[in-house]
Amino acid sequence: MKIHHIGIAVESLEAARRPFEKMLGRPPDSEEVVEEQKVRVAMFRVGESRVELLEATAEDSPLARSIAKRGQGLHHIALAVEDLAGTLRELANAGVRLIDREPRRGAGNELVAFVHPGSTAGVLIELVEEKHN
Amino acid sequence: MKIHHIGIAVESLEAARRPFEKMLGRPPDSEEVVEEQKVRVAMFRVGESRVELLEATAEDSPLARSIAKRGQGLHHIALAVEDLAGTLRELANAGVRLIDREPRRGAGNELVAFVHPGSTAGVLIELVEEKHN
Repeated sequence: MKIHHIGIAVESLEAARRPFEKMLGRPPDSEEVVEEQKVRVAMFRVGESRVELLEATAEDSPLARSIAKRGQGLHHIALAVEDLAGTLRELANAGVRLIDREPRRGAGNELVAFVHPGSTAGVLIELVEEKHN
Repeated sequence: MKIHHIGIAVESLEAARRPFEKMLGRPPDSEEVVEEQKVRVAMFRVGESRVELLEATAEDSPLARSIAKRGQGLHHIALAVEDLAGTLRELANAGVRLIDREPRRGAGNELVAFVHPGSTAGVLIELVEEKHN
């Protein structure tokens, strides 16, 4: 169990990256465009976790709509769990609303699922089952 | 360098704790009232980090005002840094707005300082210099 990453929605990666570089002591460990989600991601490794700055690459992307609605800022957190399918079953049994009732393939081919923020005090939570090779 | 904790503002600890218990696999590791900040905190250890659910204990608390203004949800993130005074100097030199220009004593007597969200894409960030005993 660990915090897998924190996702931060930013209007401008160029403007946002500098204070994070100063706090974290170095430039991002990677920077890439994820075409499927229409986002540009600057990723900083922070201990066992990551901080990801997310910039929309198209006005019709889910991230752009989120920023238009709620502004930039903390967007979601991702928790690494050992058994994602089992965790989803337990959450469903406890009456927790799920966006994904079954694990699906996410970035890096890991299994992921989102929990509905309506059940978690307004926090969008991604659950990730990491690959162990 | 690590994520020290994630602070989540909740309207009701009683309602919010259950989905987090299901995701994290156990009850909170501690639950306490911090009188100075007028909050009740349920804290879960998650790897090297912590997830903290924060409920206001008074209507005039800063947290209650934040929830009234922005709703419940992700409230702040805290990053552990090695040299807080030095990090604050670097941030100030880079033109980053600081709420605290000097380290002050926070929970557990650790040195803390807040960075102004106006400089960090709307994210309230706490910097923590952990005690090494």
